[in-house]
Amino acid sequence: MKFNCKKNELVQAIQIVAKAVASKPQMPILSGIYLHAEEQMLELQATDYEIGIICKIPAEIETPGDIVLSGRYLQEVIRSLPGENVNIAYEREQKIVKINSNTANFTLLSLSANEFPVIHQLEGNISFPIRDNQLRDLVKKTVFSCSNDEARPVFTGCYMEVGESVVTMAATNTHRLSVKKEPLDNFEGAIHIIIPAKILNEFLKIMVSEIPEIVQVTCSYNQISFAFKNVYLTSRLIEGQFPDYHRVIPSDFKTRVTLDTAEFLSAVDRVSLISRAGEYNIICLEFSNGQVKISSNNPDIGNAEEKVESVIDGPDIRIAFNSKYVTDVLKNIDSKKFYFSLGDPLTPAAIRQENDDTFTYIVTPVRTAR
Amino acid sequence: MKFNCKKNELVQAIQIVAKAVASKPQMPILSGIYLHAEEQMLELQATDYEIGIICKIPAEIETPGDIVLSGRYLQEVIRSLPGENVNIAYEREQKIVKINSNTANFTLLSLSANEFPVIHQLEGNISFPIRDNQLRDLVKKTVFSCSNDEARPVFTGCYMEVGESVVTMAATNTHRLSVKKEPLDNFEGAIHIIIPAKILNEFLKIMVSEIPEIVQVTCSYNQISFAFKNVYLTSRLIEGQFPDYHRVIPSDFKTRVTLDTAEFLSAVDRVSLISRAGEYNIICLEFSNGQVKISSNNPDIGNAEEKVESVIDGPDIRIAFNSKYVTDVLKNIDSKKFYFSLGDPLTPAAIRQENDDTFTYIVTPVRTAR
Repeated sequence: MKFNCKKNELVQAIQIVAKAVASKPQMPILSGIYLHAEEQMLELQATDYEIGIICKIPAEIETPGDIVLSGRYLQEVIRSLPGENVNIAYEREQKIVKINSNTANFTLLSLSANEFPVIHQLEGNISFPIRDNQLRDLVKKTVFSCSNDEARPVFTGCYMEVGESVVTMAATNTHRLSVKKEPLDNFEGAIHIIIPAKILNEFLKIMVSEIPEIVQVTCSYNQISFAFKNVYLTSRLIEGQFPDYHRVIPSDFKTRVTLDTAEFLSAVDRVSLISRAGEYNIICLEFSNGQVKISSNNPDIGNAEEKVESVIDGPDIRIAFNSKYVTDVLKNIDSKKFYFSLGDPLTPAAIRQENDDTFTYIVTPVRTAR
Repeated sequence: MKFNCKKNELVQAIQIVAKAVASKPQMPILSGIYLHAEEQMLELQATDYEIGIICKIPAEIETPGDIVLSGRYLQEVIRSLPGENVNIAYEREQKIVKINSNTANFTLLSLSANEFPVIHQLEGNISFPIRDNQLRDLVKKTVFSCSNDEARPVFTGCYMEVGESVVTMAATNTHRLSVKKEPLDNFEGAIHIIIPAKILNEFLKIMVSEIPEIVQVTCSYNQISFAFKNVYLTSRLIEGQFPDYHRVIPSDFKTRVTLDTAEFLSAVDRVSLISRAGEYNIICLEFSNGQVKISSNNPDIGNAEEKVESVIDGPDIRIAFNSKYVTDVLKNIDSKKFYFSLGDPLTPAAIRQENDDTFTYIVTPVRTAR
């Protein structure tokens, strides 16, 4: 195997696939990045058996072939190279890979390419295209609600439900729930799957193009893939039954409050400086007289209180929340204003964007001593 | 105590003194920042008993007094405040401090101000003024050569020698030595002290003014202080005898090499990607035919090699170093080119700036297998 390519393109491709390199690999080969050179294309692959990432870049291939190099050293070495172009050549007998760029020459020991679990692209017949910004929004507004508790796997992923004209994503850790819908054209069939949060978070990091792209989503019985531009992400799915989340969305509320998103978020952030040190991170909200009083108290540190103007429609209410469950969602709201809908101090509340019924966030309040 | 001041000025002052707040305090009071309000000035202090920092800012004082607040929470709270001004008031009976800015109100529990070991400014008669850029350069070019080994305290600080017309700073960890001199006017007497690296590193972080300043350096028998602008830094000195470093500076060299600083540094950085994983981090330098070949080898990873153009005056030589001992000094060299002076493969080498005899760096080579 022998090829040369642009350093910057190779650095970017390595950065993308490196997200799938196992940090504590089950097998040494999984600490490597697989490079496959063929037909003027260099394909890079990495996998930790849960997720897999492929990225392709153009290259001048002199001799096709496969190699596997330590992900860590490949990344450090290529990034450091002084030239614009990189030459890479495998010397089969010595099992070494020579990397040259300008005045710099590196030799890295190669791992055995035939031990690498090469990723094969999914050929499921359940597949649909979706615009990148739609998929980003579905993920961004739900994935933060997932649980980290591996003991209950269904809550560590986002539930995706695809019907004829709409795709819905939902996530919950049982204390809060995010549901986001996007319209979809011309899809036949039905999909109900749970996608691990990990691959969705990687998708958010990798898919940052400013040019609109189409993402092709493909499912098999236990796998999903996302293909866009020169990147292919794949992951196993989570087995199990996602709970019927519709049941936890209250059908009506007594008090509806309209608030400025940025102003309320920064006030909650400040007030929770005091509660954050505590175990439950509780903030108390008192809605009355066109104001929300946000407060927190920690006997070891002190207390904080801030008032924010609001439009309150309905009876006054005093209610307490885990402040992280409030700030997480507000950071992902795009509208200048948002609606906070409340029932009783111990029944779930809803947060929705202004003039947008495609997103619903439900959060369970906390019982406080008073 | 009651005052108000500009939020930004208070944030900056807290940031400066926070560097002396003990991370693992011997006594709870040392986790606090002491605030003293008097005569339209707010003075902030922090100390961990080794170093102490004072910073003063203008404030509108309504009632003078002293308080001590948790350094961590004071910093987080003040930084987060929404307004341009901050009002701070101590309520003596409840032992709480009220902080208000715009819509935000915080209450922090106060520590006992009378337990705080207030820093008194040194009134030594051994004192001299020095320009900030001179002192910065003295520190920057030597402090990295200090040892971290607390078992041999004299090597954990910089030796400062002040004579009638010159101030010299030197530091060594016994494998390398930095010596830097700066001219000084009108100083009478002599100073020979060892200043802990910690206070010098804090000085480098705090003294970043772009406007030329004068730093007043004052010494007592076991303490030193640096006063500039609104800041006062103080530290205990290290007891003991600094070794006679002049003896380790070779009087002559066989080979003198002139190299481009940036080019050589980036090549050494790259080549040591391979050796850095190893225990000794060794790079080998071969000077011959107007080139330096820099190489490193790690049996688990591979090897690296790079050639850099140089002007070589004297016999060819092959010599090995701990690469960190080479890169550390090159990062602190300001001249476009530098001189590398070499004797034999096992005798100390010298690095000097181009056309500058005020700085000398001596580094001991490493014996290699070949």
